[in-house]
Parts: sequence; C-alpha cells; structure tokens
Amino acid sequence: MELTVYELGQRLGAEVVMPSEGRGMGGLEIRSVGPVGSAGAGEITFIVDERYEREVGKLRAGAVIVGRRIEGLGIPQLVVKDVKRALIEVLEIFAPKVRGVAEGIDSTAKVGRGVKIGEGAYSAEAATKAGVSIGAFVVLEERSEIGAGSVLQSGCRVGENSKVGKRCRIGSNVVIEHNCVIGDDCVIQANSTIGSTGFGYYFIDGAHRLIPHNGGVVIEDFVEIGANCCVDRAKFGNTVIGRGTKIDNLVQIAHNVVIGKNCLIAGQAGMGGSCKVGDGVIFAGQSGAVDNIEIGEGTIIGAKSVVTHSVSAGQEIFGVPAADRAETLKVIALTRRLPKLVEQIKELGSRIERLEASKDDKR
Amino acid sequence: MELTVYELGQRLGAEVVMPSEGRGMGGLEIRSVGPVGSAGAGEITFIVDERYEREVGKLRAGAVIVGRRIEGLGIPQLVVKDVKRALIEVLEIFAPKVRGVAEGIDSTAKVGRGVKIGEGAYSAEAATKAGVSIGAFVVLEERSEIGAGSVLQSGCRVGENSKVGKRCRIGSNVVIEHNCVIGDDCVIQANSTIGSTGFGYYFIDGAHRLIPHNGGVVIEDFVEIGANCCVDRAKFGNTVIGRGTKIDNLVQIAHNVVIGKNCLIAGQAGMGGSCKVGDGVIFAGQSGAVDNIEIGEGTIIGAKSVVTHSVSAGQEIFGVPAADRAETLKVIALTRRLPKLVEQIKELGSRIERLEASKDDKR
Amino acid sequence: MELTVYELGQRLGAEVVMPSEGRGMGGLEIRSVGPVGSAGAGEITFIVDERYEREVGKLRAGAVIVGRRIEGLGIPQLVVKDVKRALIEVLEIFAPKVRGVAEGIDSTAKVGRGVKIGEGAYSAEAATKAGVSIGAFVVLEERSEIGAGSVLQSGCRVGENSKVGKRCRIGSNVVIEHNCVIGDDCVIQANSTIGSTGFGYYFIDGAHRLIPHNGGVVIEDFVEIGANCCVDRAKFGNTVIGRGTKIDNLVQIAHNVVIGKNCLIAGQAGMGGSCKVGDGVIFAGQSGAVDNIEIGEGTIIGAKSVVTHSVSAGQEIFGVPAADRAETLKVIALTRRLPKLVEQIKELGSRIERLEASKDDKR
Repeated sequence: MELTVYELGQRLGAEVVMPSEGRGMGGLEIRSVGPVGSAGAGEITFIVDERYEREVGKLRAGAVIVGRRIEGLGIPQLVVKDVKRALIEVLEIFAPKVRGVAEGIDSTAKVGRGVKIGEGAYSAEAATKAGVSIGAFVVLEERSEIGAGSVLQSGCRVGENSKVGKRCRIGSNVVIEHNCVIGDDCVIQANSTIGSTGFGYYFIDGAHRLIPHNGGVVIEDFVEIGANCCVDRAKFGNTVIGRGTKIDNLVQIAHNVVIGKNCLIAGQAGMGGSCKVGDGVIFAGQSGAVDNIEIGEGTIIGAKSVVTHSVSAGQEIFGVPAADRAETLKVIALTRRLPKLVEQIKELGSRIERLEASKDDKR
Repeated sequence: MELTVYELGQRLGAEVVMPSEGRGMGGLEIRSVGPVGSAGAGEITFIVDERYEREVGKLRAGAVIVGRRIEGLGIPQLVVKDVKRALIEVLEIFAPKVRGVAEGIDSTAKVGRGVKIGEGAYSAEAATKAGVSIGAFVVLEERSEIGAGSVLQSGCRVGENSKVGKRCRIGSNVVIEHNCVIGDDCVIQANSTIGSTGFGYYFIDGAHRLIPHNGGVVIEDFVEIGANCCVDRAKFGNTVIGRGTKIDNLVQIAHNVVIGKNCLIAGQAGMGGSCKVGDGVIFAGQSGAVDNIEIGEGTIIGAKSVVTHSVSAGQEIFGVPAADRAETLKVIALTRRLPKLVEQIKELGSRIERLEASKDDKR
Repeated sequence: MELTVYELGQRLGAEVVMPSEGRGMGGLEIRSVGPVGSAGAGEITFIVDERYEREVGKLRAGAVIVGRRIEGLGIPQLVVKDVKRALIEVLEIFAPKVRGVAEGIDSTAKVGRGVKIGEGAYSAEAATKAGVSIGAFVVLEERSEIGAGSVLQSGCRVGENSKVGKRCRIGSNVVIEHNCVIGDDCVIQANSTIGSTGFGYYFIDGAHRLIPHNGGVVIEDFVEIGANCCVDRAKFGNTVIGRGTKIDNLVQIAHNVVIGKNCLIAGQAGMGGSCKVGDGVIFAGQSGAVDNIEIGEGTIIGAKSVVTHSVSAGQEIFGVPAADRAETLKVIALTRRLPKLVEQIKELGSRIERLEASKDDKR
C-alpha cells in the first residue's frame, strides 16, 4: 500500500500543512508508520504526547500526524483533532496484508453433530455464505455454534454446546471447553484455554476431592484475550468477563470471577476464585487479587501488587500486600532511610544518657 | 437430570426435613445446584460454612443441604453428616452431560510403532475394549502406552516411551514429551506441557550451553494439573509430582523438582530447579520458591510470596522474601507507621535539645 | 549406549586415574550419568563444585569426572580441564535415543502456496534433501520458509511470510504468527506463541480500541525459548530477542521489547512494552520490568522483583520495587527489627519525660 501525503491527509480528514521550503512534498509516497525516533522517508510518524515535541527537530519522516500545528518543522504535517484515533486509522491503512485462513471450512476440520454455522446447520456452503473461516485441524464438538464472520485458526477446538459470536477471531490451538459463550467481536489469541475446570477441592478422607464445576464461562462482546491465558469455568453459574474488557497474555482468571466492563488486565496478572471486579479496573503486569474479594470500579492496581482484601472504587494501590499507592511509595522511601533512623535513635540514646549522667552528677 | 427433593435425599442418605408449612415440597423437582445467594426454585443449595447461616432467611432455593437442622427455614432441608461430601455428590448428579470424545480412536489420530493401548498392542478394537478414547489429531509417538479408561482430547501428543496410566484425562493440545510417566487417575488440562527441557546452562566460551536433560518426569496417581502449566524434565533422574497433589493453571515446575503428596499449588505459582517440597504443602497464587531449597511438609506459602531459603515443616509464611506470616504482617503494619515514627524521633530530638539547652543555661 | 571407563576417558580427552585397589575397574561399563548423591555402579558422576568434594567419600558411582585428582577415592577418576564442558559431553553421549519425527514431511501437514523448504520450493523430496522434519498436523502458511535441518513437531503452525532458520527445533503446538523471523539454531518449546498482537489500546469514545500491530518479531540465532511463552509482535518495527539469549517457561515478552545478547530470563518472568534490555542481563524467576525502561547490560534482577525505572549497567537489584540488592536486604532486616525500634523509641520517650519532670522539679 502506497499513498501520497495528500491522499493520506484526505483519508484522515486532516489539514495538511506543508513546510515553507518544500511545497512538493505533498506528493511524497508513504508506505508505513514508524515511531518518532526512527521513522524515515516513506514513513509517516505521529506526536501523540507533548513530551515528544522536543524531538521533532530530528524528524526524518516523510510526514507527521499532529494535534496542533508545530512551527518550524521541515516536513509535512497532518493536523487532526484526535492523534490517537488517526494513528489507529493510519496503522490500519498500512497493516501488512495477511491472507489468513481462506473463507470456508478447511477439509481437515472435524465437525460434530448438530453444529451450527452462521444462522443454519453446518455445511461448507453455509460457512462460505456466513463468511466463516475454519482452519486446518479445528475441532467443533457437538452442538457448538459459530457466528457469521468469525475466523477459527488452525488446531483450535470449540467444546460441546459452546457458542462463538459474530466477527470473532479464535487463535490457533485455543481450547474452548463445553458450555462456554463467547460474545460478538471477541478475540482470543493462540494457545489460550477457556472453560478449564477450576481449582476447588475439599479435603475428605485424607485426599483432596475435586468440587465438580457444573458452571460455564460467559465472555461478553468486544472482549479481547491474549495468548496462553486461562479462564476457568464456574462451579455454578458462570465466570464472566464484561463487555469491552481487554486481557493480555498469560493471565489467570479463576472460577466464578466476575469482571466488569472495559477493564485492562496486563500480562501475567491473576485473579483468585469468585473475585468481583468493577468496571474500568486496571491490573498492571504481574499483579494479582486473592479469592473472594471485591475491587471497586476504576481501581488501578500497580505492577506486581497483590490485593488481599476488598477495595472501594477509584483507588490507586500498590505493594505486597497492596495499599494506597502514594502512601506505600512514601513508606518504601522511609524504609530506605531505616539505617539512618537506627543511627538517629542510637544517637538520641547517647544524648539522653549524657543528660541522665549530668543529672545524677548534680544530685 | 431431574430429581425430587425426596429422591435427592435418598441418593445422599440425608434426613429430609420439611418446613412446617410446606409438606408438599418433597415432590418439588430439582434440576441443578446453586450458591446460597442466588439459587432459585428448581435448584438445591447448601450451607457449608456457618457464616452463611445468617443468609438462610433469604433462601429462595428449592431445598438446602445442611450439616444440622436449622429452625424456621421455609424450604426443605437435607440434613447430612458431611455437607462438603454431599455437595460433591449432588454436583456430580447434576453435572452437565458432555458426550466428549467417543470411545475408540478417532480416525485422524497418528499412532507410531509399538504403541500399547490398555493391555495389548494398539488397534481400534483394543481401544474400544479398554474404554480408551482418543480424539482428533492426537499423536501417539513410538512405544507410548495409554492405560484403560483414559481419554486423550484433540490435538494432544504423547511422546516416545511415555506412559499414561488408567482412567486419566489428557486435555486438548497437551504435550507430553518423551520418557514421561503419568500415573493412574490423573488429569492434565488443555495446553499444558509435560517434560519440556529444563532451564540449565553453563557459560562456556562466551555462550550459554544447554546442559542436556537426560531424565524424565514422573507424575504419580491422582495428580491433577491445570491448563497451560509446564513441568520440566530432569537433568538426571526424574522431576516428581507426588500422589494426590493438585496443581492450578499456569504453574511452573522446574527440572528435578520433587513435590510430595497431597500438595495444593495455586495459579501462577512456580518452583525453581531441584526444589524439594514436602507432603501437604500449600502454595497460594503467584507464590514461588527459588531453586535448590527444601520446604517442610505442611508449610503454607502466602499469595505472591517467594521462598528464598529452606523452611522447616508446618510454617505459615508470607512476603518477598517470605518469613513467618504473623510476624511479617506485624512488620508491615509497623512500616505503615513509619511516617509517625519519624515524627516521634524528630520530636524526641527537639525535647532533648531543649533539655540540653536548659542544662547549658545552668552551667 | 554402553562405554567402558577407559573408552569414556578417551572420548572426553581425560586423564584416567584408577584407585589403588581396583586396577580392573577401567573395564567397567557405564550406561548413564547421575548426581553425586545417588549415582550407582554403571553410572558416571561429576564434581562440578568444590562443595561436593566432601561427599566423595560416599560415592557409589562407577566413575567420577573431576577437575583435579582427589586422594583416597575408591573409584576411577576422569580428570579433565573443564568439568562443566565434560559433563555436557557425557550427558550428550548418554542422552536417551529419541527417534522424534522422521525426516521428511508428514502426510497430514498442511502446506500453503509459495512455502520454501531449505533452499528451494516445497516438496517432500526438498524436505528430505534439506534434512527438514515436519510432524503431523503442522500448518505452514503461505510464503513461510523453513531452513535446512530444522524440526517442526506436531501441531505447530508457521504464519504467513514467517521464516524459521536452519537447525531449529519448533515444539508441538507452537504458534508462530505472520511476519516473524526465527534465526538459526533456535529452540522454541511446546505451546509457546510467537508474534501475538501486543497489549496496546487507546481509550476512545468510551471503549478501548486496539492499536494495530503492524510490526513483527525477530529472534536471532542460538536463542532458546521454553514452553508456554509469549513473545508479542511490535506495533512498528520488531520485538527483538538477541543472539544466544535463553528464555525459560511461561515468560512474557511484550511488544517492541528489545533484548540483548546472551541474557537469561527465568521462568514466569515478564517484560512490559518497549523495554530495552542490555546484553547478559539475568531475570530470575517471576521477576519483571515495567514498560518503557532500559536495563543496563549485565544487570541481575532477583527473584520476584519488579524493576520500575531504568537501571544502569552491572547492578544487582531485588525487591518490589527493585533496588540495590545488598541495601534492600539490609533494609528488610531492619524492618524485621521495627518492633524493637518502636520499643526503643517508647523507652527513650519515657526517659526524656523523667528528665523533663526532674528539670521541672528543680524550677
């Protein structure tokens, strides 16, 4: 894909501002997007953050997307209202063309009885009509359903009675166990497991006995789940991931967890059983929450932190165990001063001793 | 599955106690199990913990399993000796019927030379006779063995010379490398890897050189392993997971680790190489142990903790690095008081100064 | 494989030293390698660390590899210059013979258009000639390339335009997405995902919108990656793992991370987006780094630590958040003394009070 600076400006609805000494630049061809620091001719870059404005002097890109006109730039500027939105658009324009799995059903896919594709019963024609793509070595168990426009990549499996919504992308070797529901416009990346049996045991007669997990998993619309994640099924009812929530790689969601809408769960984070997580909560990387607690909406949990008790809405917390972030950082800074504090206490002791001695002298 | 309250009572060996105003309720049909808070008519619930007894006033379930009769309940009670055991039973009764893979061997399975199914050589008939189910796209490498009654779900692979015991369930896309032994009645959930090469290198001539891992993995009977776990093979001898130990999702067991019996290893926990873990040890979520240490039997390691040195039996530990739990929590509470302590020290200093000044005055 | 002690000595270029009372022992047959503590007759063991020299009295092995002659040993010694190197050699000699996938391409493999094997276009003959092995149910997407001598185990997938170098081993069910480059002599173990879309979103109009990831992944020569790892593709440019770096299981490498050469990344470690990691950095188990920071070469990050800001070269750091290791351990030890410090402060207060009271008395 190649577009001139002018064509790009038009596509983005941007005001195109040419440098004073380079009126011909609008015809330059742009082929990809690059970061401010390294984008060269033929690439468009962007200033999403004022911090980067300092770097614009060094710009070697073919053009730059900006939120407001910057004086003295030697390259064309595409001035837009919302740089982030424009960046997403321009990245989509220059996305590498991947053919992916062909539409229709690969001949090797294993399809059980009663499977539905799009609106009707399973058939290669129904799949093509519904725009469904099913890769090599995919297994659709009995009575599973795949919505129109969805893509299932090679080696994944959809369990009995499970439903995948419309326009989903299910990555290679993903395993969705039985009785799980995936909404519309969801992404589950490669090697993730949805609907695994949770970790619930009773110790009876000298052995751990599994509590059967009769429940399922409900993943609402627009949820995206990274690679190698696990979402356990519920003991009863459902483990739920709310609409628009995004989950990174290697994340663990235990049985009966209920996550609200538009949360962000970063890599290697995890939640214990029956956690209730409000809307818009952010789990930073490698953070966690123990089981059976509630996390109020909008709470931000710092990297590596573990939440060990319920937290009200809107908190920013950090630490092992997690507490108010600002306070925790202050406390950590103070612990670093402990050697000095110990010295001070010792010194105060000596001074008191001298005072005591002098008092004794006077007696 | 539907059963009347009376029929359920009989199945559980329970005493059925009807509410004073509802003698007809014994004929009510129960179709599933639900938690105290949300179970409705047609569902049976349970009181496994006295804390929930307060909530029984609000019960809307069709019946409740209790350990002792509760006065004033408006619904039928099934009084049993052991509520936990009865709950497992009733959950098994109402478990969703999943057909799973059919008995016998899927025609797409790839079977190497010298594979044994049940007692004899591999054949579709031998598999059916032994009650073995092998899903689509399964790979059984040469001389591997699958015990009677075991189920291998789609896409999993059993490596050369590896043995899976009787009545095991090996999930989809599980990879068991060569020379591993899985005991009887084991479960390994989807996307887990057993027998990967461990992380052992020597730095020689400016490069890390892998130490070959000639050993294997031994997983004893009744072990259950969650989804997306890794159990590395040993350098020599075997990595061992003891009988009855249960492992959650995304857990890392390094080479030459030896885990005792009936341990519980929660999600995202991990153990470094050659760790020796006693019987009945509990690793909470996201906890870990460094390599080459011993953890005494019955020790409980708190969430997110990391054990950095050997620990004697029966400890309860927490923190980074982990230490006695009660002491650690006390210390953490005290660190939270550090700002106040700093104030106090400052104030003591001022008071001493005043004392010193007044002493000087008197000279 | 069986070799006499003499034959082994010759293979290792070792000086063979016989015990005074056992001249015949050189003909003993050795069949495997075992650790000092448990190796028996028929096994060779090794003393790689002087700490183990104390244990040699108990040796029951058939022979021992040593760096210098030890007096009074009752078994043959193979004296070598570099015990570690000799140990790797002897482990390779006695490695279990695994037939693995046969050379050539399994008939079930799915091969897209334009795939190259070795130097030329794809064909079973080209694969055999190039010594390439492709297991059952492997998927090679369009225009992917597999270098000579590489082994792809069952169920793995190589995405469009992606390249696997020479002499690589790609484990079962590994997923390599499109536009990724794997160098020569690399290992990627089972169930890992390379080239997943990274975790980058902008919040626009009340929803998180994915930033398209147009970049790829470059894995340089001699990189080894464990099981169930994730390496995300870049937004632009490439996520890079430098030559000779070794990665354990369940590790998360986010988008646009650039890792130097010869690093060691232990199990369950993780790096946030755009981290820049110098050569020879060590991440211990379960450690992490937040996004957008730089870690200087040779830095060692302790178990469970999280690096929250850039770190200069050669540091040894530990903690949540990570700081100088020695200092952190000192501070932690001091926090353990906090209860005593609180007592001391209280006591100083009392003594000051008494001094103040006595001063008042004198007024």
